[in-house]
Formats: sequence, C-alpha cells, structure tokens
Amino acid sequence: MDLGGLRVNGKRLRSSLELMAEIGATPGGGVQRLALTPEDKHARGVLVSWLEEMGLEVAVDEMGNIFGRRRGKDDSLRPVMTGSHADSQPKGGRFDGILGVMGALEVLRTLDEHQVDTERPVILIDWTNEEGSRFAPSKLGSGVWAGKLDRDWAWQRTDANAMIFGEELERIGYKGALRCASWPFYAYYELHIEQGPLLEAEGKTIGVPKGIVCLHVYDIYLDGKANQVGPTPMEGRSDALVATAEMILKVRELPAKMSGNMVATVGELQNYPNSRNIIPDRVHFTVDIRSWDDDLALRSWDDVKADFEAIAARHGCPIRIEEPWRVQHSEFAPHLVGRVQSTAEALGYSTLPLVSGAGHDATYVAMVGPTAMIFVPSIGGRSHVEVENTSWEDCEAGANVLLNCVVQSANEGGT
Amino acid sequence: MDLGGLRVNGKRLRSSLELMAEIGATPGGGVQRLALTPEDKHARGVLVSWLEEMGLEVAVDEMGNIFGRRRGKDDSLRPVMTGSHADSQPKGGRFDGILGVMGALEVLRTLDEHQVDTERPVILIDWTNEEGSRFAPSKLGSGVWAGKLDRDWAWQRTDANAMIFGEELERIGYKGALRCASWPFYAYYELHIEQGPLLEAEGKTIGVPKGIVCLHVYDIYLDGKANQVGPTPMEGRSDALVATAEMILKVRELPAKMSGNMVATVGELQNYPNSRNIIPDRVHFTVDIRSWDDDLALRSWDDVKADFEAIAARHGCPIRIEEPWRVQHSEFAPHLVGRVQSTAEALGYSTLPLVSGAGHDATYVAMVGPTAMIFVPSIGGRSHVEVENTSWEDCEAGANVLLNCVVQSANEGGT
Repeated sequence: MDLGGLRVNGKRLRSSLELMAEIGATPGGGVQRLALTPEDKHARGVLVSWLEEMGLEVAVDEMGNIFGRRRGKDDSLRPVMTGSHADSQPKGGRFDGILGVMGALEVLRTLDEHQVDTERPVILIDWTNEEGSRFAPSKLGSGVWAGKLDRDWAWQRTDANAMIFGEELERIGYKGALRCASWPFYAYYELHIEQGPLLEAEGKTIGVPKGIVCLHVYDIYLDGKANQVGPTPMEGRSDALVATAEMILKVRELPAKMSGNMVATVGELQNYPNSRNIIPDRVHFTVDIRSWDDDLALRSWDDVKADFEAIAARHGCPIRIEEPWRVQHSEFAPHLVGRVQSTAEALGYSTLPLVSGAGHDATYVAMVGPTAMIFVPSIGGRSHVEVENTSWEDCEAGANVLLNCVVQSANEGGT
Repeated sequence: MDLGGLRVNGKRLRSSLELMAEIGATPGGGVQRLALTPEDKHARGVLVSWLEEMGLEVAVDEMGNIFGRRRGKDDSLRPVMTGSHADSQPKGGRFDGILGVMGALEVLRTLDEHQVDTERPVILIDWTNEEGSRFAPSKLGSGVWAGKLDRDWAWQRTDANAMIFGEELERIGYKGALRCASWPFYAYYELHIEQGPLLEAEGKTIGVPKGIVCLHVYDIYLDGKANQVGPTPMEGRSDALVATAEMILKVRELPAKMSGNMVATVGELQNYPNSRNIIPDRVHFTVDIRSWDDDLALRSWDDVKADFEAIAARHGCPIRIEEPWRVQHSEFAPHLVGRVQSTAEALGYSTLPLVSGAGHDATYVAMVGPTAMIFVPSIGGRSHVEVENTSWEDCEAGANVLLNCVVQSANEGGT
C-alpha cells in the first residue's frame, strides 16, 4: 500500500491543541469547558473563525452541532466526515474530544496546504454536549442528529441549576437554523484518545477499535431506618449504607464471577441524612456495566440484581431499581476498521486491535452509516481528569492516520 | 418512701410541648429547629416569656445558655438544676431535648401552683446547640459552661454556609452578658427521651441510666485513582469507594467480633467526583464507636484501624485518619441515680437500669457536679427523625419523677 507522502503538520496541530487548552484551563493543568458555557462558546468561536479563514462553508444545526464543509471535485457525492467534540468534563483533560476536532482541522489544513482536491466533499464536525456532565444524557448532539434522541426532548434537558439546554444553546448563539437530522454519508472517522491503559501497556501507537462495548446503566434506591446511632443496638438495625456496601462489593466481584470480558462500576452514591450520628435511612447509587457481549452484560445484571434483592431483604431495606438506559454494543464498519489498520501499518505505526470501553459520538453515527475510530495512547490510562495526557508525537501519528484514511475514502468512487 | 401527693399537670405539660412542636414544624410531623436559627430564637423567646411570667430571674450567658432561677428559702445554698435543649436535628422530632426543658418548666409551674418553697434555689436551663447538626461539635453550650470547650473557639465554629456561631448568636439576640462558666451546684437532673428501643421492648416506663457510654469519633479519608469506567480494566483499579465498602462492613462486624457491649456505625460518607462514569478517587467517611467500656472501644478501634490500613494498601488507596474527639464514658452520681430509681418506684412506675448510648448536655454537666438523667420510652426506638414519638402518659410520668427528685434534692441541707 503506497500512501504517498501526505502528512499533517505536527507543530501546527500541537499549537491548535495548546490554544484550545487555554480556553477553560484549570489550575491543575486540565480543562473545564462544560457544554454551552462561556468556555464552550469561546472554543466554538475560535473553531468557526478558523473554518471561515479556510473558506469553508460553515453550518450550525438546531442542536448546535457545527459543520465545516470542504467541497469535493464531484460535490454531489456522499461526503466523508470526521470530528468529535469540544466540550469537556468538569476538571477534565486537554485531549478528550478536542483532539478529534483539532485533528480534523489539521487534516483540512493539510489538504489545503498541499492543494489536494478530493473527489468527495469532506465535512469537519464539532458535536454538541458529548460529555453529558452538564446536561444528561451524554452525546445529545450526535444522538439527535442520528435520529436516536428526540430534538424537543433534548432541548428540555436541564442542568443542576435548572438551566434549560435549548435556552442555553440560544444564549450562546449556537441554536442554528439547519435541521438536525442525518444525511447519507460515505464514511465517518473519529480520532480520539484511548482513555484506557492498553496501548501504553502494549507499547503501541495506534488503537484500532472494532466497535464500542454495550452500556447498561442502573439506579438503585435503598431505604433504611434512621435512628440515633448510640442507643440503637446493632441487632435489628436497617442500615441502608451497610446494605449498599455489600452491594458495591458484589458489583466489584461481578466481572471475575462471570469470567467474561466486562467491567462493572459504582461511580455515584448519595447517602442520607448523612449525619455522623444517625443510621443512614436512604441511599442512591449507580451501577454501570459494559461489555462487548450484550448477553453477558444482561446475565451479569440478572445475577447481581438477585444479590441486591437478597441483601436488601436481609437488612430489611426496601429496594427500588431503575433501568434508565441500555445501549447495545456497536460494531464499526469492518471495511473502515480495516482501512484504519492498514493505513496505520503503511505509515509505520504499531497498532493494537481493541474495543472501545467508552461511548463516543461515533456510537450514534455508526447507527446511520459507515464509521470507524482511531485511538492514540492515554498516558497512565488516565482520562476525565486534569492530568489526562497524550504525547504530541502520538497526536501527530493519530492525525496522520486520520488524514490518510480520509483521503482514501474521499477519493473512492461510487455514490 | 413517702413523697406526698405532689404531681405535675400532664395536660399543661402536653400543651407546652405541643406549642413548642409548632415552632419549626415540618410537613412530616417533626420539628426542624436548628441552633441559632429564627426557629430557635422563636422557641427561646416563648420560653423566656414563660419564665418571666413566673417572676423568675432570667439570665443568658455568653454562649446563649438560658437560666431561669427560682429562689430558695436559703438562697445562698447550692442550687438544684434541671434542663436540656430546645434545638433539634434537621427533620428531627418533637421530644428530643425540648421534653427536658418543658419538663423542667412544668416542675417549676407545679411548685408555684402548690406554693412549694424549697430550701435551695432551683434553676431551669436551656443549653445552646446540643445537637451539633448546624454547628459541630455538639453540646457547645454545656461544654463551654463546664470548662471543657473554649469559649472563643466555640464562637468561631461555622455552619455549612460559613455562618459564624458567635455572630449568629448575636444576630438572634442571645449573646448574653453572663460569663459562661460553671458554678457549684447541688444536683443536676435531665429528663430526656431514651432514643433507643429498650424501654419499649421491656415494657418499662422510666429508664434509669447509670451514665453515658464513651464516644469515639473518627474521620477517614481515602484516595483512589479516577478514570473513565469503560476503558479501565478491573485489574489495577484503585477504586476508593470499593475500598470504603469493605471498611464499612468491617465496622458493621466489629461489635460481634469484639463480643462486647458496643455499637459501631458509619453515618456519613462523601464520594468524589461522584459521577456515574468515573472511578471514585476520593472518599471521606466517619466512624462512631460507643461503649460503656472505654478500653473495649479503644481495642476495637485498634482492630478495625489495622483492617482499614490493610484494605487501603491492597487497593492502592492512600488512607488518612483523623481522630477529632474521644469522650470517655461518664458515670452519673450514684446517689442521684439511686434517687431517680427509688422515686420512680415510689410513684408506682416500672423502671429499667440502663446506660445512655447518646451523649447529652448531662455528659458535660456530670464532669463538674452531681448529675443524673431520667429516660422515658421512645416509640419504636426512633429518634432524630420526624416520626420520633413518646406517649403523653410517659412524658407526664418522667416529669413526675423529675419533680419529686428536684424537690427532694432541693430540700436537703448542707451547703
């Protein structure tokens, strides 16, 4: 496979990433750029000005998704698309999301610089509210675009201060006129940090995910019996936090018990009345189960749910379980996954086939057209934290794979 | 033992309790009258007006403790004192604390009504901030009075909104001129609800505590390693919440393991960043250990502390332990405990010797003079909750025991 000598400008990529890292920079070296905040608006403004500088056609849809379109030689052909998101977690890192947007920008700049005209149009995308940390659920922009979430419902989402998504979108000036709905496309590539430790552990540069694991999310509510701790004997207590502790350990032991490839986590917990001298009478906690094997995840849930119910009964703690959402595992287009693999190899990068443990905008995009992702190593496997980091060399490597995948797809014939 | 026919007016006692229950009444049938709030001020104002109606000498000290003094025939003799507190837990009950203040009021009213002049003066007391739920620690008023807490330090305590105790005390108009320091007294009696299930379980009316269990309080801080839950394998995780769950179960098992008479509880827990898709990297939780046997409590703590350290090491979670306070068990004056017992019997009430599992203002008062308490049953053993309840008959019985104990002590000679 001969790709020719087309390469991104690593220094320029680094400088766009560094500039973006200043928008919402935290004292701990990370970024806090929650969706639809002034920081998000600022980052969007910079991106749009860069797109306009390049003479691209910029459009913003009703969900605030930003599209920068580079014309193709046959502009009626289905486009090749690439992007990710500019929003971050609270105290998040400088690479999650924004690498895929700046990587796409660098691809377009490289094409311009080298006066490469592709057959198909190429579209850069900044999806709105991927993180979901200000407005739940995550991936609102790509979800509505793919027709999997309802636009009006999405507009009504509220943050912790009861601010309404649709109003905030309007306030920052990014409630666009374009209808938010997918169109036929030829390929979608998303460059992203791995957010896990595998590439680093294996000493590989490019991760080639065959898809994204399933995601099951559960909310557990337990009731106990509040009492002053001193005069209440241990016997006969209904301590909602003790029952919860047993359940947390059941979740921790679940993957080993089911001896399958999966992860299970309790990330969030609220304890009431949360007073040091009152027996807890109410606990809410979450369970997150992920696996490539949807059926294994379901069987695991059934297993741990039975444990939960037995523990709750033993402690005299009524239990209520909500199952707010389940997303099945999502398989990327094999021909595009193969292209990521062969392109990385042709560029001389070491590769590792894997699955993505985190959801991405690509989850929704893959539901409506051919999709693949490109992963680069996360130092220490850390993400969603201020110390999240990826070497500049690996950022450049990922962008080179993206560039050459985009060019190959964009020069293919057909419709 | 012939007590004569002196009895309180149960209807009047009930009506004062019902009036107090309206101040800070919650929709759930309880009371929220946190220290130094407008509700506390309101209750204090009503109490003071009642004391002044009776022609008592009312004094307020620098900590806001309220004293209503009824003269004795020999007013130079050491006084007999009785009281409790008017503040409540958030969503607390209608009896905890206020029963001891209204019971004392009813005692004084009965003495007036029957024109009983005692040899010694009798002082009613409303201690400030017993609960400690707005300003930690608890029992600030009686602690400073007994010389066990520093006045200036107490004034600097802050609530969750950074409001300062001393300023709030001034704002509600109860930073009095009287120096907050104990004086010699002949006896202190405190009427209180049991806050436990024993009296009800045994079918007894009057609980006769020989003292108050020790109280050891610990704060545990654990660090984990935050990561996106999806891409982070179970192996190698440092999940601070999973480590905490193991520790909570160790605390739960501690009393049985040490096979002694003690209770151990985790009441409070904060989890960070508390996001459903991030592995918890920071947890704070509390441990509360109580026993009549100080040494058993210490040995238990040593035991569970070793468990904590082993669990923390196994999970790769650095642990930090603070030991903010330990209060030794406090033994009441045997001659006053005996008087509570014999007086209750002489009045025809069934009795149960026990120890108090909860701390009370009597804890501090007992450190500086002869002290005893009188307990009445808590229905279902519930307290610090809105459904906390005690029958009007039991309230009346407790007040009758208090009345006759006060009268006996107040008519004894000596200094």
